[in-house]
Amino acid sequence: MSFLLPKLASKKEIDQVIKTTQDLVLVLRFGRNTDLTCLQLDEILAKTAHDLSKMAAIYCVDADSVPVYLQYFDITLIPATVFFFNGQHMKVDYGTPDHTKFIGSFKTKQDFIDLVEIIYRGAMKGKVMVTSPIDPKNITQYELLYQDI
Amino acid sequence: MSFLLPKLASKKEIDQVIKTTQDLVLVLRFGRNTDLTCLQLDEILAKTAHDLSKMAAIYCVDADSVPVYLQYFDITLIPATVFFFNGQHMKVDYGTPDHTKFIGSFKTKQDFIDLVEIIYRGAMKGKVMVTSPIDPKNITQYELLYQDI
Repeated sequence: MSFLLPKLASKKEIDQVIKTTQDLVLVLRFGRNTDLTCLQLDEILAKTAHDLSKMAAIYCVDADSVPVYLQYFDITLIPATVFFFNGQHMKVDYGTPDHTKFIGSFKTKQDFIDLVEIIYRGAMKGKVMVTSPIDPKNITQYELLYQDI
Repeated sequence: MSFLLPKLASKKEIDQVIKTTQDLVLVLRFGRNTDLTCLQLDEILAKTAHDLSKMAAIYCVDADSVPVYLQYFDITLIPATVFFFNGQHMKVDYGTPDHTKFIGSFKTKQDFIDLVEIIYRGAMKGKVMVTSPIDPKNITQYELLYQDI
């Protein structure tokens, strides 16, 4: 199975989309095609990408190909999703100690759409950090998900 | 006592320098003028600012005036110093678990100069993360420094 989401496979490609994505929420999903949770997440991203195309640009990053960005974002669990807006890393309070990335899959398409909308609206108002609208029950508990990467 | 370093006192001013500082290491020192370690750090920054002017732009940020950036950078200890290059947050491996900021004061002017040089050279080569050249003995142990902010 494969989803029609654009893929990034090098630091150079990531740098390029961070620099050039303007006035859209840049969604970078770091994961692995062999990871089941990652496939679940990709399905949600792929199904919402079209509806969100005026608000977000969504890319899948092969985590194994960009060790420098795993280190940069301190990614030890996959899938991990980070958000940018006009070159700036957008932070989100998910009610967990880590505000820099979303770990795991979204439970529903609507959860992801709501999150992107909150980030988009916040960023357009100049915010650099927003509060996640997702019901905490739908936020993955890290301990259950630990992957040795 | 006061140092001749430019000051930033609002989110808007910080956003502006992040966006407009080009091809220089942007040094943002989050602190308080009443904090002794912060004054020690400011003395080092002030004494090196001129020599580093072709490599770095150094600003002092009043931590209490920008709660949103304290939250964004997850700052609970001051002084905390973060580095940017052309709008991107530069991460540094100090040999501590936190690669996003330097906590405390530098022990010597040379430590700060060496760090800025490594960040500058790394960034010019497209790196987003570098390894600190500072002797780990000169890196503050957080536990000793805890400030209730």
